[in-house]
Amino acid sequence: MRMYDIIMKKRNGGELEDREIRFFIEGYTRGEIPDYQVSALMMAIYFRGMTERETQELTMAMAESGDRLDLSQIHGIKVDKHSTGGVGDKTSLALTPMVAACGVSVAKMSGRGLGHTGGTIDKLESFPGFTTELTRQRFTENVNRIGIAIMGQTADLAPADKKLYALRDVTATVDNMSLIASSIMSKKLAAGADAIVLDVKTGSGAFMKKQEDAEALAREMVRIGRNAGRKTTAVISDMDQPLGLSVGNALEVREAIETLMGKGPEDFEELCLVLGSQMLIAGEKAGSVQEAEKKLKEVIADGSALRKLAEFVEAQGGDSRAVYNPDMLPRAEIVRPVPAPESGYIGSIVCDEVGICSLILGGGRETKESEIDLSVGLTLCRKVGDYVRKGDPLVVVHGNAEKRVEEAAGRYLRACRITDAPPCPGPLIKAVFT
Amino acid sequence: MRMYDIIMKKRNGGELEDREIRFFIEGYTRGEIPDYQVSALMMAIYFRGMTERETQELTMAMAESGDRLDLSQIHGIKVDKHSTGGVGDKTSLALTPMVAACGVSVAKMSGRGLGHTGGTIDKLESFPGFTTELTRQRFTENVNRIGIAIMGQTADLAPADKKLYALRDVTATVDNMSLIASSIMSKKLAAGADAIVLDVKTGSGAFMKKQEDAEALAREMVRIGRNAGRKTTAVISDMDQPLGLSVGNALEVREAIETLMGKGPEDFEELCLVLGSQMLIAGEKAGSVQEAEKKLKEVIADGSALRKLAEFVEAQGGDSRAVYNPDMLPRAEIVRPVPAPESGYIGSIVCDEVGICSLILGGGRETKESEIDLSVGLTLCRKVGDYVRKGDPLVVVHGNAEKRVEEAAGRYLRACRITDAPPCPGPLIKAVFT
Repeated sequence: MRMYDIIMKKRNGGELEDREIRFFIEGYTRGEIPDYQVSALMMAIYFRGMTERETQELTMAMAESGDRLDLSQIHGIKVDKHSTGGVGDKTSLALTPMVAACGVSVAKMSGRGLGHTGGTIDKLESFPGFTTELTRQRFTENVNRIGIAIMGQTADLAPADKKLYALRDVTATVDNMSLIASSIMSKKLAAGADAIVLDVKTGSGAFMKKQEDAEALAREMVRIGRNAGRKTTAVISDMDQPLGLSVGNALEVREAIETLMGKGPEDFEELCLVLGSQMLIAGEKAGSVQEAEKKLKEVIADGSALRKLAEFVEAQGGDSRAVYNPDMLPRAEIVRPVPAPESGYIGSIVCDEVGICSLILGGGRETKESEIDLSVGLTLCRKVGDYVRKGDPLVVVHGNAEKRVEEAAGRYLRACRITDAPPCPGPLIKAVFT
Repeated sequence: MRMYDIIMKKRNGGELEDREIRFFIEGYTRGEIPDYQVSALMMAIYFRGMTERETQELTMAMAESGDRLDLSQIHGIKVDKHSTGGVGDKTSLALTPMVAACGVSVAKMSGRGLGHTGGTIDKLESFPGFTTELTRQRFTENVNRIGIAIMGQTADLAPADKKLYALRDVTATVDNMSLIASSIMSKKLAAGADAIVLDVKTGSGAFMKKQEDAEALAREMVRIGRNAGRKTTAVISDMDQPLGLSVGNALEVREAIETLMGKGPEDFEELCLVLGSQMLIAGEKAGSVQEAEKKLKEVIADGSALRKLAEFVEAQGGDSRAVYNPDMLPRAEIVRPVPAPESGYIGSIVCDEVGICSLILGGGRETKESEIDLSVGLTLCRKVGDYVRKGDPLVVVHGNAEKRVEEAAGRYLRACRITDAPPCPGPLIKAVFT
């Protein structure tokens, strides 16, 4: 078999056989097939697409290209959750303790990642001493004891995907539905959970700008997961404006804590309930969405979800006092309210731009080596559809350098459109694929 | 400027600006842009195509990526000729002395190349002592004195094309009209001739299997040449069966000599007259095709074309006695006539397969390091449309190893279809673009 013939076949619109996909993924992972042949194939796939069978096989080949986590020592049904990402997406921070308090085991492997803010691990480091460097044994013990553990991505999970994604990223071959779906699902399958709940974002702050694309991706991923023998469901949720009110690492931790206290922003709580319900059903802790939501609201009301977060932070070496006293979380020196330049309704907030404001303040990584400032970020005072009076605060900017605070404030003002007539914002939850 | 944006633009169907094409070619030539980005761009170009302007700029950028030959010390109009290649294509060997005898200067730089037989230089080495290692000065002197010189490709002509072609060759991105045209024309433009006559082959033994593709390529190349200020014409000629009767290095030299003696195969002589006429007109040695053909027939009839070949061979250190006595050329030990297995008309000869027979006998190079056996090859006794009686010779196989001779004979029989009804072979010359 020759890589040349595989490229030619796909270029000419043919369907690759399973053994051809295996040959290419295995050869590429071992470094036997050069980048320049793979990038040509990726571009041919961009134009020709892949059939469902091809996409499935590509996912399986990538999932099997490295280590696969063995979660068999963990009791019960292990449920994983994945978000395609967005601005202010602190869902895991609140959702994980909520479902664990309801008896669903969450055994996660997380990365740090590049972006507007840090990843879940970075955010959790707002608790002094918190670490994700757990041995496999301690990881298993923690999940069995308290229901949650998060490990840094030390294992060599889906190395084919890592290599392929890095190549696609520099050759303009990222945005193909089959390639995106197989990339996400290969990691999820290798991570070993029994069930997977996907949160696919759509809107100006999401990778999938159009809802129809988000739905197509969701359907593709659900199909892949199920064909691989995992319970898989997907929720399509709005990312046309930031999720909740806070953007920034410690600020998002605070918002997650407030949500676990029953004082979170409405939209964020709603998303946690919808995703949490799917996780409870997948984990067989509830038979219906109604039953699941009731349980989730109970663990908020009785404080057990909040206690679960504290237990989890402590089990991984962190100081959990801030869970009950969020003022102890890292705080920025400058806290600057930005007044609205005119009266009116918030017509739209260019979501991507809010992420860039966070990056400007130092809250995210531009390169792998960047240091994250956990304390900085933005707190929105108004969201789309809200009315604001001229001079009232539109947003609060948290920063540690005057120049950056000014720049972020200016940028936020340009991203936020104020209109005379009230807009009609769409629903937060666009669809659920069960 | 970033290569990523250039790939993305072309992928999305945009037209690249001149400066973007220059950026990519210059960066790639200097090794600053990696293969994997260029192969992705090539695949995007395969699907999206290039406009005339883009193709022109790509050609110019590649032509200017390395050395350009300065032929200004050579008197008169310098005319170059290029063939897209085929089986039994010994045209340069006869054509060059014919046009030089008519006063047109031919200053060529040639490579050896991979293929069924060697390149023009390999074939000329059938004359003992012949060399293409000439200094620039001697090269110029020879052209001014006798009208012909051929130099080995020592200069760094169009290195961007060399690098790009090697990459396209392993990434299934060769067959795009704009990329093929720019590859050929960049080298021709860098080689410095004032006028270029192109022989674009079509048929089962050609790169362009379909006549419409050959015509499209010819039109594209003529346009590029003219836009670059060179007189450019193209001839579309048949390669659905081998050209002439001989395939193999010394055998082709012999056929060229016989043609210069006025005893060559009809089709080969016709092609030389058609291409030669275009060269004479471009070199301003004839005002019309009729006048040109008359002059070319004269230099054959009066022996001056044959003497020109001898002069040329001697001027480059070769023993020219074989020009007048072709039996002195390298000869194979085994000369085996292959009888026709049945009576009938030759319906078709799969042209590529005849080339492979030559390769089996040792007449070509499979890798750059292969040694060529100049003596081996095939002499066809019948061509398409001819009648053959069972047992009469169909082809004569020349070889130096019994096993290879048998293999080539068997393969030739399978490539040659004998039919009851006479076929209707198409004309040799399909079109001329002047």
